[in-house]
Amino acid sequence: MDFDRNAAARLAEKYESFYLYDEGAILDSIERLRKSFDGVRFLYSAKANPHPGVLSCILSEGIGVDAASLREVQMGRENGLGKHDIYYSAPGKSVHDIDAALPDCVIIADSVNEVERIQTLAAGHGIVAEIGIRINPNFSFDGAVGTANKFGIDEDTVFEKLPEWKAMKHIKITGIHVHSRSQELDGTLIAGYYAKMFELACRVQDALGEKLGFVNMGSGIGIPYAESDRPVDLARLGDEMTRLMGVYRSRLGAQILIETGRFLVGKAGVYVTHVLDKKVSHGRTFVILANTLNGFVRPSMAQMVESYTVDAHPHNSEPMYTGRNAFGFVPLADTAGTETVTVVGNLCTGTDVIAKDITLPKLDCGDVFVITNAGSYAAVLSPMQFASLTPPAQILLKTDGSTVII
Amino acid sequence: MDFDRNAAARLAEKYESFYLYDEGAILDSIERLRKSFDGVRFLYSAKANPHPGVLSCILSEGIGVDAASLREVQMGRENGLGKHDIYYSAPGKSVHDIDAALPDCVIIADSVNEVERIQTLAAGHGIVAEIGIRINPNFSFDGAVGTANKFGIDEDTVFEKLPEWKAMKHIKITGIHVHSRSQELDGTLIAGYYAKMFELACRVQDALGEKLGFVNMGSGIGIPYAESDRPVDLARLGDEMTRLMGVYRSRLGAQILIETGRFLVGKAGVYVTHVLDKKVSHGRTFVILANTLNGFVRPSMAQMVESYTVDAHPHNSEPMYTGRNAFGFVPLADTAGTETVTVVGNLCTGTDVIAKDITLPKLDCGDVFVITNAGSYAAVLSPMQFASLTPPAQILLKTDGSTVII
Repeated sequence: MDFDRNAAARLAEKYESFYLYDEGAILDSIERLRKSFDGVRFLYSAKANPHPGVLSCILSEGIGVDAASLREVQMGRENGLGKHDIYYSAPGKSVHDIDAALPDCVIIADSVNEVERIQTLAAGHGIVAEIGIRINPNFSFDGAVGTANKFGIDEDTVFEKLPEWKAMKHIKITGIHVHSRSQELDGTLIAGYYAKMFELACRVQDALGEKLGFVNMGSGIGIPYAESDRPVDLARLGDEMTRLMGVYRSRLGAQILIETGRFLVGKAGVYVTHVLDKKVSHGRTFVILANTLNGFVRPSMAQMVESYTVDAHPHNSEPMYTGRNAFGFVPLADTAGTETVTVVGNLCTGTDVIAKDITLPKLDCGDVFVITNAGSYAAVLSPMQFASLTPPAQILLKTDGSTVII
Repeated sequence: MDFDRNAAARLAEKYESFYLYDEGAILDSIERLRKSFDGVRFLYSAKANPHPGVLSCILSEGIGVDAASLREVQMGRENGLGKHDIYYSAPGKSVHDIDAALPDCVIIADSVNEVERIQTLAAGHGIVAEIGIRINPNFSFDGAVGTANKFGIDEDTVFEKLPEWKAMKHIKITGIHVHSRSQELDGTLIAGYYAKMFELACRVQDALGEKLGFVNMGSGIGIPYAESDRPVDLARLGDEMTRLMGVYRSRLGAQILIETGRFLVGKAGVYVTHVLDKKVSHGRTFVILANTLNGFVRPSMAQMVESYTVDAHPHNSEPMYTGRNAFGFVPLADTAGTETVTVVGNLCTGTDVIAKDITLPKLDCGDVFVITNAGSYAAVLSPMQFASLTPPAQILLKTDGSTVII
């Protein structure tokens, strides 16, 4: 991927290790989604990367928030978003979470219990809460049957319960939410999922006897990690969405929402670190980097997963593991010649390995080493506190050349 | 395992999720090591659990620090330890790390480069630095040959370099350090490793032409995780150490050091959380807990690893993964009857699963749920910041009934 090598090299003079997020790349991704999906509203899955500068950049572009916690709801409010711009969807919201979030967002009830909790709490406040229902549908991303799932309420249960919920005086069901997969590159599968979602929304609407205000399709739009990955054909997927919206226009007036996390930020971030040491042991050359497992856990996690599997294409375990060759390694060293090395981190654990026997430009102590695909589920998933090493900085490079550093 | 159920239940009224560390259990472990290993000094691997109360408890018992970072060196100093109580051993120490740590600890050089860095920096300060050499020996824990390793300096290289290092004016090699494995339950293997270490130390001493001040054996003394694990026979292992010390007394006057992390704290901590929700989906019952993957990552990590392996006894990837059935699940619910459930966390990811189809006492929303073996490599390895949920507290329950809470 492209990143600003000059900025990385310049900042590397001051920081031993850091994430470098590129505002221009984020804005580009937003523009690409917008251009392809006319009339759809996007929500940003804040958990992918809640860096305050990144969040502010995205939310000031009119993207809403897909909040996975009360704190993420509050982040949306702190960025000036209104109640109808923030959708709080997570399993296992506590009574406290729901109570505190009620005034600030649309809560997506994830279980039968949660519908009842919201009704009770809203009654206590003397309000009517507009809510969505997260449904575990009788279909999957690539199949025609549903499966047991920790997320949402089984479709059959939803239809059974709708009359009872409709009679509740302090909730009003204004939308539905389904989310099945967060990293899919097959646009045809995604389009098929959209079509099933339109049908499901119409059925819910019919059962409810009222128009839905929103249909949150979750997401699925993935990003290429490995060099062999082909990006989703956005123009084609957007055209299919436009066609579906046309077909259902008379039946369904709901706002269509799509969640997006990694699509906006995943490729807009790199991890920059340094070579701290280099040694040869029993004929193998080790390059030792600062803060890998503890600073950017995904490459070490990938090595660990791949030490257990015999599958050429292991299943993913998002957001911890995506697939083989999901990272690019880009030394900024200006050297002639290459060598085969094993790249490890400076933790006192053998698990802190990010690449085995890889051929790279020859590296020396002090050289800057960049790892790509570090913009989403990266800093947030890494055990920064481990071994009390100095954690990496997180730096947003803005289009005007200024930086936001945490 | 045993833990203070009353304390857990009482604190669970205030905290949604927390680690509960038991000072009494830590002191017991220290006592068990001391009783078995006469004349050996123990060092605490602070990275296992650097909770300030835990650290203070252990270090005030005369245990030294095995520091994996500059910050851990400083923690030792803040606890009143002297230079010879703190051993800084990690791969990839930066020039800054070494320079700042020099006055405060014994640095274990992990590479040829590091020996030279220490010499240069000590020369700059006009001092002679007492250092140790971390050796990658020509033997392993269970074999007679060495292998390529990111840690330490190959044994052959050490013997080649010793004359040169001996001539360096600003370093003085006063000890050696080897660490091969951190979780071993076979006392016979550990004893065999100790024997090889005594031999290695003698050979280094002979080559150096000077007595060594310390021999750091690293560790290996594991703890039982699964119910089928048998603890190390400490009395027997200690006797073997005493025997070896007797055999080598005339040749080797060095202080014997053994590192210990999880042995002191691993079983002295539990993770306490709550049932936030419960649902049935397609016939499967899900119990949703607060803060599992993000608060205590190891159980979810184990599920993830085991989804990739077909091995009945998968290799470990310490400290991320130890082995099957490494955790006990103890609901504090006072209910009759059991049920088969899948236990998951409240993150918006399907990877946040800690047990599938497990039979437990019947649980309800609000019940307290305890996970054992949470004292080491637990809080420090967990991505507490993920999804901006409220992170778990870490509470040390002291023997006088007071608590130290962070």
